[in-house]
Amino acid sequence: MLKLPGRTSDLIDERIPWLDAEMEATLASSSPDLDLYRWARYHLGWLDESLAPMSEAERRRHGGKRLRGVLTVLACEALGGDGPASASAGAAIEFIHNFSLVHDDVEDNDAERRHRPTVWRLWGVPHAINVGSNMQAMVDRSVLRLARHYAADSVVAALEVITQGIVLMTEGQYVDMAAEDAAEMSLEHYYRMIGGKTAALIRSALWVGGLLGSRDTARVEALASFGWEFGLAFQCRDDYLGIWGDPALTGKPVGSDLLQGKRSLPVVEALAASAGTDAGPRLRKSLAARDVAAVLELMETLGVAERVRERVEGHTESALAHLRAAAADNAHGDAIRDIALYALGRES
Amino acid sequence: MLKLPGRTSDLIDERIPWLDAEMEATLASSSPDLDLYRWARYHLGWLDESLAPMSEAERRRHGGKRLRGVLTVLACEALGGDGPASASAGAAIEFIHNFSLVHDDVEDNDAERRHRPTVWRLWGVPHAINVGSNMQAMVDRSVLRLARHYAADSVVAALEVITQGIVLMTEGQYVDMAAEDAAEMSLEHYYRMIGGKTAALIRSALWVGGLLGSRDTARVEALASFGWEFGLAFQCRDDYLGIWGDPALTGKPVGSDLLQGKRSLPVVEALAASAGTDAGPRLRKSLAARDVAAVLELMETLGVAERVRERVEGHTESALAHLRAAAADNAHGDAIRDIALYALGRES
Repeated sequence: MLKLPGRTSDLIDERIPWLDAEMEATLASSSPDLDLYRWARYHLGWLDESLAPMSEAERRRHGGKRLRGVLTVLACEALGGDGPASASAGAAIEFIHNFSLVHDDVEDNDAERRHRPTVWRLWGVPHAINVGSNMQAMVDRSVLRLARHYAADSVVAALEVITQGIVLMTEGQYVDMAAEDAAEMSLEHYYRMIGGKTAALIRSALWVGGLLGSRDTARVEALASFGWEFGLAFQCRDDYLGIWGDPALTGKPVGSDLLQGKRSLPVVEALAASAGTDAGPRLRKSLAARDVAAVLELMETLGVAERVRERVEGHTESALAHLRAAAADNAHGDAIRDIALYALGRES
Repeated sequence: MLKLPGRTSDLIDERIPWLDAEMEATLASSSPDLDLYRWARYHLGWLDESLAPMSEAERRRHGGKRLRGVLTVLACEALGGDGPASASAGAAIEFIHNFSLVHDDVEDNDAERRHRPTVWRLWGVPHAINVGSNMQAMVDRSVLRLARHYAADSVVAALEVITQGIVLMTEGQYVDMAAEDAAEMSLEHYYRMIGGKTAALIRSALWVGGLLGSRDTARVEALASFGWEFGLAFQCRDDYLGIWGDPALTGKPVGSDLLQGKRSLPVVEALAASAGTDAGPRLRKSLAARDVAAVLELMETLGVAERVRERVEGHTESALAHLRAAAADNAHGDAIRDIALYALGRES
């Protein structure tokens, strides 16, 4: 079983409270008596369903890993910057991630998130939309808190990177919802979807951390590009595991994504590979019938698993090359690398 | 029939295209091929249901008055600033107003807006939520466009004022939705609701325009306070008209807001005035039964119409006093005054 090196685990554990403190301060700067903010805290994993505080252990379990925010702070430090000063940028990134989850749960009609009822399930769709909009405003509040430590031009630069992340995320969500099923999706659309929904925010996380840490544009952009490729590799691998992952590890049956008709890379690859051949119509028919065995057999013939693995490899190697180009040869740069390899299930 | 002075109408007509051009440029800076942005343009009144361009006359009719954005630009000019340079701040204010309408229409289950089907009605709730989030990101995009004309510290100051507007707006929306019916609402809650839903954004509009026009904090804050009081006066008067307005002018029957059970100032005032008296329980019963005649009779006895008129007067006088304190003795300052008086149905 893969494990994070102890020194990287320690760095992560130290930074999560920095992020939570910044998020708490951002939320507390408004009217603290409104349930609106308690519902936000529920979603963030700090309160339980009765809006009472959760124990530290429960917060860990339900609060999410704050991975994106941690990467922001580590990126700043990896380029020689002040970690705690950058934590409100990490908080902004976490607010983006979390407002989008609150809204996605409504859009996808998901009743559960991190083993608990979703905000809309507990307090209704209208309030959930409003909680998400308020949390999106908290993104800007967190960005504004950077002004305590940075000059105005850095705050504006941070806002630019962060806004770009939100814009691409909503575009990715649009592409995802607009494709009625995976059989409509081209590779170009697929990359637009996962670029927006996964890679853009990780890129923004590394980018904004990097620019708060250093004025060396080349190194900052190398970190940003690492974030982008890491995000793509992660999502492509996730899609691989959604079909060929070990059921004992994923907790889902083989071919699970096929049963759900998910817009998944293997399906997109299989459609691309079979276009114009006899296999094309057969594939579409089997997909529509959710005939998992038939789809898996066609994918085998088309060499889809190999193609997907090659994409994961390609994005991973590209990510690592960008990270080397950022020349972050210190414990924080190492931690970023460790986190990526761990998330991608690799030893090195 | 009340009319805007010709010179003020001309100033408004000149500025609407500045705002629309800035909004268009903000939207165009993203992936223009996605329907996501066409749906935003539909909501803004530029495209019709088939997503074809509307004529200039139709745009006027369906596009909204851009009143808040016009006030932003006029505020900048009234304090001696450069109007066109400030137009992207006006665009940001308009994006706030419009993203909140897209979301409110979902939250309130409203199928029509400005005589056309709402975004959720045409393209579904999930997409409408996403269109709103994307438009909320366009607020920041518009703020960032200020950097073409202003130093970074002004951009940050603008972001602060604008973010405050969004935060208060979502808080007001929360208070509105959380009160299950008007009978629960105290005057304090009422002011929080209309402060957030109406006054905060008008204040932000004047405030951000003012600060882009002048470094004189006292004058800028006077304009902001004018915006706040004008917003309160406007909403209190709107609530007055919702019950005692001339049906020929409002297009609604007498007591219309009572039939709908709206959280309206007259109801809140009547509850406050009758608290602890015999009239209290009778009022609650009549409100619950939507017995308009009985409620109107009780309101007559309690002198509610007079109380509400006094509030409208009070906020209006306060607004005008703040506007005088801003010492904006020029055509643009006059136009701001004209717009407020016109919106409040006053000759002077």
